[in-house]
Amino acid sequence: MKISLGAKTMVLPVPVLVVGTYDKNGRPNVMTVAWGGICCSSPPCVDIALRRETYSYESIMHRKAFTVHVTPEGYLTEADYFGIASGRDVDKFAATGLTPVKGDLVDAPYIKEFPFVMECRLLKVVELGLHTQFIGEIIDVKSDEEILDETGVPDIEKVSPVVLVPQIRNYYGFGKKLGKAFVMGKKLCAK
Amino acid sequence: MKISLGAKTMVLPVPVLVVGTYDKNGRPNVMTVAWGGICCSSPPCVDIALRRETYSYESIMHRKAFTVHVTPEGYLTEADYFGIASGRDVDKFAATGLTPVKGDLVDAPYIKEFPFVMECRLLKVVELGLHTQFIGEIIDVKSDEEILDETGVPDIEKVSPVVLVPQIRNYYGFGKKLGKAFVMGKKLCAK
Repeated sequence: MKISLGAKTMVLPVPVLVVGTYDKNGRPNVMTVAWGGICCSSPPCVDIALRRETYSYESIMHRKAFTVHVTPEGYLTEADYFGIASGRDVDKFAATGLTPVKGDLVDAPYIKEFPFVMECRLLKVVELGLHTQFIGEIIDVKSDEEILDETGVPDIEKVSPVVLVPQIRNYYGFGKKLGKAFVMGKKLCAK
Repeated sequence: MKISLGAKTMVLPVPVLVVGTYDKNGRPNVMTVAWGGICCSSPPCVDIALRRETYSYESIMHRKAFTVHVTPEGYLTEADYFGIASGRDVDKFAATGLTPVKGDLVDAPYIKEFPFVMECRLLKVVELGLHTQFIGEIIDVKSDEEILDETGVPDIEKVSPVVLVPQIRNYYGFGKKLGKAFVMGKKLCAK
């Protein structure tokens, strides 16, 4: 018997995405976003949802571009900070000692020290309520060579991405490998 | 120095969401979706992205409602199967022995055996390309009582949700607790 918990956002887990933008004066900023994910394979798209009062909201509307980083375990403190402080008040790069790099293909910066980044141009703006969803077309994915496996794909164990359980405000690491997608379920196809 | 991997969908990890629908004849169906997540806090919204040719696409367009389950580790084989087979050809509930339950508040079924489900009414349809994003307003969250912690929130360790790394098609479990969100980063605020 299920009990009702009311109308709440309770998908668990959610990603910890760090979004890079230039403000209207060209100053680089980063913000951490938990509402987001991939939303289309072709064109490849990623969505992030921001509140209107965030400084990054303004910057994305202005520059029509952003970057998205997956947070590696080693930079979790910095990513948490990026979600607490506002780029309106502080220079988050200066505060953390991280290095902004100008995107090659879009008008947004990325963090040199993060192993993995997507360069995105703004494709759609979807107004939802408290949050506005920005859908970005992924123009390029950039990765440190050291984290790639022998097939040229980022190695999950080297990236060590973190996830967030928002309701209890806890970050978690990656667990054990459970099986192959599109393989495990095949045994049920025969039925 | 970062190297370019091209325009690809590479946010890792992604959730493993099982979407429940009724088809035009009222037959319950489920499909597994990896492109999706929370996109607004108020109204609470979840998005899922489906290809147009899926059977669930048709059903959502018809019924304007769907449910979203987080996949627990114990039902991963079934969830993988839900992403392989099509409801156009088979009855996935019959094939897995799982039980469809009529949603209380929306015109969509949920899986009795899954511990946790969101009942959603279709709010927006965003055409993107290969995938169409369906944004659902979460009308209610339903949970088995056994998985709730003492504060009434689903206990992540009891739910044991899985995540997927699409590029290497591997499912992973949850790892160790890494720290508190909106707390860890505070030490950088003083700088």
